[in-house]
Amino acid sequence: MENRRIPVELDPKLALGLLGHAEFGRVAFNAEGRPTIRPLNHVVVDGQIIVCTGHSSAFAKAVRDHAGLQVAYQADEIGLHTRLGWSVLVTGTAADITAEHRAERLGPQVRSWIDRPLDTVIAISPQNVTGLRLTVG
Amino acid sequence: MENRRIPVELDPKLALGLLGHAEFGRVAFNAEGRPTIRPLNHVVVDGQIIVCTGHSSAFAKAVRDHAGLQVAYQADEIGLHTRLGWSVLVTGTAADITAEHRAERLGPQVRSWIDRPLDTVIAISPQNVTGLRLTVG
Repeated sequence: MENRRIPVELDPKLALGLLGHAEFGRVAFNAEGRPTIRPLNHVVVDGQIIVCTGHSSAFAKAVRDHAGLQVAYQADEIGLHTRLGWSVLVTGTAADITAEHRAERLGPQVRSWIDRPLDTVIAISPQNVTGLRLTVG
Repeated sequence: MENRRIPVELDPKLALGLLGHAEFGRVAFNAEGRPTIRPLNHVVVDGQIIVCTGHSSAFAKAVRDHAGLQVAYQADEIGLHTRLGWSVLVTGTAADITAEHRAERLGPQVRSWIDRPLDTVIAISPQNVTGLRLTVG
């Protein structure tokens, strides 16, 4: 039982702060009625999670097809060897903000790791933020 | 544009093999009609993803409440500095196998990183497996 990790709950503000320092996470949403997950790069601006995706991606389609699409966004940084770190989960709604003025400013802040056309800017508005830190027991 | 990563699709068998070498991933499912994500440790045995969770967890409840619960399972290993690595996505169905004989053998194979009672063994049967490797462009 030694070297087990104890999960300690994080304050929501601290959790959102950790998310802001991470460069990527994973969004879960329903596409054609079934849950799916996509890894994405993000920035946190004014309390919203900003991500970019392609116009024809499953995520962009789901957001366009469902106003106030419910999503979950998760990020973690857990050392493969130390197994110490944190995990943050946000649930909220996603909206396509590509046509909004602020998209010109926010879109380029998202540093994409992959070389694909990412012409759709999506803002996730958190409704609930939870986080865990894994500490040594 | 230098140092951008090119995503290359992986063969499903290779993708499931990479998943088998990872120790943890994230399951997405619907709880009370809304998508959510939970990080979990896993093993891949006989083509199924085996995870353990607590009887009272949201995931265990969802699996018990919905026969053939649709889930997505995702894992990645992407270097924070190199930004090279892979990401695998499995969609499929989840079943509580705690009462089955094989649970006694499979449950202990899942090396949990956290010190919580994980008395429920769940098997995810893949329907679709996709994977990407990020290579230097």
